[in-house]
Parts: sequence; C-alpha cells; structure tokens
Amino acid sequence: MSELKKFTVKGTKKIELDDFSTDEKIKKTEKEKILAKTEENRKKIAEYQDKLYSEGKESILIILQAMDAAGKDGTIKHVMSGLNPQGIDVYSFKSPNSEELSHDYMWRAIKRLPEKGKMAIFNRSYYEDVLIGKVHKLYENQKMADRCKQGDVIGRRYKEIKNFEKYIFNNSCRIIKIFLHLSKEEQKKRFLERIDLKIKNWKFSTSDIKERQYWDEYQQAYEDAINETSTKDCPWYIIPADQKFYARYLVSEAILDVMKKIDPKYPTLPEEERRHLIEDKELLLSENN
Amino acid sequence: MSELKKFTVKGTKKIELDDFSTDEKIKKTEKEKILAKTEENRKKIAEYQDKLYSEGKESILIILQAMDAAGKDGTIKHVMSGLNPQGIDVYSFKSPNSEELSHDYMWRAIKRLPEKGKMAIFNRSYYEDVLIGKVHKLYENQKMADRCKQGDVIGRRYKEIKNFEKYIFNNSCRIIKIFLHLSKEEQKKRFLERIDLKIKNWKFSTSDIKERQYWDEYQQAYEDAINETSTKDCPWYIIPADQKFYARYLVSEAILDVMKKIDPKYPTLPEEERRHLIEDKELLLSENN
Repeated sequence: MSELKKFTVKGTKKIELDDFSTDEKIKKTEKEKILAKTEENRKKIAEYQDKLYSEGKESILIILQAMDAAGKDGTIKHVMSGLNPQGIDVYSFKSPNSEELSHDYMWRAIKRLPEKGKMAIFNRSYYEDVLIGKVHKLYENQKMADRCKQGDVIGRRYKEIKNFEKYIFNNSCRIIKIFLHLSKEEQKKRFLERIDLKIKNWKFSTSDIKERQYWDEYQQAYEDAINETSTKDCPWYIIPADQKFYARYLVSEAILDVMKKIDPKYPTLPEEERRHLIEDKELLLSENN
Repeated sequence: MSELKKFTVKGTKKIELDDFSTDEKIKKTEKEKILAKTEENRKKIAEYQDKLYSEGKESILIILQAMDAAGKDGTIKHVMSGLNPQGIDVYSFKSPNSEELSHDYMWRAIKRLPEKGKMAIFNRSYYEDVLIGKVHKLYENQKMADRCKQGDVIGRRYKEIKNFEKYIFNNSCRIIKIFLHLSKEEQKKRFLERIDLKIKNWKFSTSDIKERQYWDEYQQAYEDAINETSTKDCPWYIIPADQKFYARYLVSEAILDVMKKIDPKYPTLPEEERRHLIEDKELLLSENN
C-alpha cells in the first residue's frame, strides 16, 4: 500500500501530470522480485474473488484508460489471467456504434456494470467522452438537444461522471480507475515495434499516428479528467507505464487493496436454514440405493 | 485425441448413457501426470486463444450441462482460469426471468453467442428446455401460441436446436458440448459434503434434493438430447465426472482439439497496407522530439 500511495489521486488537491513519473526506473535486479510479488498478488486476488462471488454483495469495476500502446490489453492479460472467468467480464469500448450514439454517452457502459459478486474491466470507458471527446470536440457533430451543446459541455460531464460514480459506489460497486501513464518516447518505441514485428502489425493502426499528434492535448485532457473526478471513494491511480512489469504489479496492488477493503467472506447460513440442511442430510442418508 | 474419442458422440449411431462410465478409476499414481497434462493443455489453449482473438475469424462456444454438483463451476474455474478474460465470456443460465420467458426459449442464449475471435462458456444453456423442460413439462405452463403446445414439443425442439447449431457452425462458430456424466452415488457424496462443510453451504439448495428424485428421468432426458443433437460438426462429449481432475483434463483435451482444428494465426497485413506502415515509420522517426 505504501508504494501505491504516491500514485493515488483522491481529489484533495489539484495534481499536474508532469509531476508523476512514467518510469520508476526499477533496476533489472529487482525485476524478478516484482514479478514474484505480482504472481503472489494474482493468487490472493483469485482467492478474494472466490469469496466476493460466493458472497454476492459487492461488485468491482476496473476502468483502464491510457494512450495507445500504454499496455491496457497486456495488463488485462497478465494481471487478470488466473482469475475465474465466471466472475469477471471484460468490455472493450471502441468508437460508439449508431445504437450507442443514439443514447446518452454513459448508456453503453451502464449496461455493462458488474452484477454484485462480480468484477468488470472496462478497457476504455465513458471517460473517452471527456478525452477524445474533448480533444476533438466530438459532441459538436453528435445529434443531441440544443441545450446540451451550449456552455461548458465537458465541464458538465465531469460533474455527471462524478455523481454517477458516487451513485454506484453508494450502491455496492467499488471503482478502480487506472491511468497508465506512458511517456511520448516510449509510445514511439512501441509503435515502431508494432510496425517492425509482423506478428504485431494487427495491433497497429495508421490512426494511432494521427492521434499521437494531439499528445499534449490528450495529456491535458487526462489531467483535467483526473482532477475533476478523483474522490476519496473513487480515486484515480496514475500508474507509471514505461516499464510494463512494474505497471502490472502496481495494478495488482490497487486491486488487492480494494479487495482487502471489501473483505468478502463465504456466506454462512442462518440457524433456521442450517436446520433444513440437516433434514436434507437425513433424507440423503436414508436413500435405498 | 485417442483418449477423447471414446467419449465423443457424433450422432452416427444411438448411444445409451449406461454404456458410458462415470468413473474411469484413474489410479492415484497417475493423478500427478494428469494434472501436469491439464496444466500443459491450459497453456496451449491460452496461446491458441491469443491467436484466435487477434485473427477474429472464428468463435468457440462451450456448453456445459450436467446434474447438480457434477463440477460445472469447478471445471470453469480450473480449466479456464489462465485464459485471457478479455477473450472469454461466461454466462450462467438460471431459471428464465420474466423478460426471457416472454421470448422464444433460445433467445437469451442467442444474445450471448461469442463474437468472432472470442470464446463463450454457457454454464447450462438452451438444453435446459429439453432437460428440466422435458422432465417437468415446463412448457405446459408457459404462455405461447396454442399450436406450439400441440404434438411432440420436445421432439420439435431437438430439431430446432440441431438446425440452430448447424446454422452457427456454418457462420464461424464452433460448438463444444460437454455433458459431465456423474454417478448418483457420487452426487450424494458431494451433496453431503456441501451440507457438512459450512464454507460450502452456499452452494447447496434444498431444491437440489427435490431434483435428485427425478434422477432416472433426467438421465433419460440427457440420453435423448445427446442422441438427437449430436452431429459430426457439433458432437457431444460424455465426460466421466466422478473424478474431478480427470474430467477437467478431458475437457481441456476437447477444447484443445477444436483449437487445433481452427488453427488460428496472427493476421498479417496485405502488401498495400504494409507500405502504409513504412510511411508511418518514417513519420515517427522524423519527429523532432
């Protein structure tokens, strides 16, 4: 938890993204230890998940946001593999389709909120509507009532998101908001790798280069979104992402931290119901076959 | 594959469930070896899954059906943990709710079919409508057009299911149908354990005992459903389930077998698109920062 603290934003004071490192420069000699700790966390998370599921009282929503190639998919693969897929759903939110666009911007995400006892990972989320939506002013070309385009559209959305997250927190869902904080230089390296390695070509799109030209605008949009929507109950984690193995470790720490707070337990039956069980047991034992 | 063959039903001739063992009596000395092979299969499945996902051409639907306590949940947990949750969705079909009942019986399952590149596990499925639906003649009390209640309702459903599965197979989805074949004696043992172990109480319901009284009717319903819906392309696997570790191994074999048939590959770009990548690379390398 102590390590995680410096990456946690609780909204008590404004942060600047530049004050957060993208690279903690963990030494190679430390890497084995970090990997082992990640593996240990993964096992602990799986144990907690089993209890969370059986208890069916609380759910966990993990939101992953980042620039392209920051490691969202890899984080899901490496931190969440090993969990019971019956208890976790992953949704990747792409450009909204026409049905999604014909609703309010949070509609498609709300539909996918985890049921009690389950975890959900949002690979991107409604935050896109204050990120790419802000950078490219997408709302200007979307059909909506005139009043919704007037004034500070993005400013209102921050408040709406904050209220929405407070609402779901108050209704049995914990939210873990992860920003994988990547340097511009590291993104370039990873893009080049995706171009050079044929096996990785499918992960690369020419549009990725176009968006990279708005790097500064995106950084500003992330900083604003984090400042406007971080709270004590629904904090953001600004995770240094240049070293993949360390980012994954920190994400596992953040999840484990919330699991500990929930502290789920296998449900026990009230005495009355236990008595029924005893009757059932006798019935079973008295069978002829 | 050779081991799997004796448990595979392809619809070429009628089978009797009694001819299939629920217990292969694998010796304890063999257990370690089987566990290691399962683990190896799991890793291979994860590798295939990565390619399946990146290729995005074909999907896999795994249907799990069984009597209570046969190990459906445990199979999902032990065979499917280790897969990337981004590429696999699990749905547990309980008693249909009122919205589901107001549609045709396959509607709720069709909504959850895996998209291309993904896997889905159905923990129970539309087969319930020819299993519990047959045993208790549930359709008699469901609202539907008069003509749908006349004649051989269940017989028609077998054909509908067979046609439906042929349709999805013809449209890029492979189906793996698993029946976990449990003995009545072993079910009793597992029920007693769920009663005796407080930590397992939540898995037990008094209604489980009620359904157990229809054991023979259920066995007949399974036998009929398997005979009526097994085909070369969409076979059933009758997996001996009294030994959990061996059942899980066989399930992993069945999945691996289908993965090999699909043989997914990381997609490579056509020359034209590769050329765009080179332009992108030059753009990246010429950046000033």
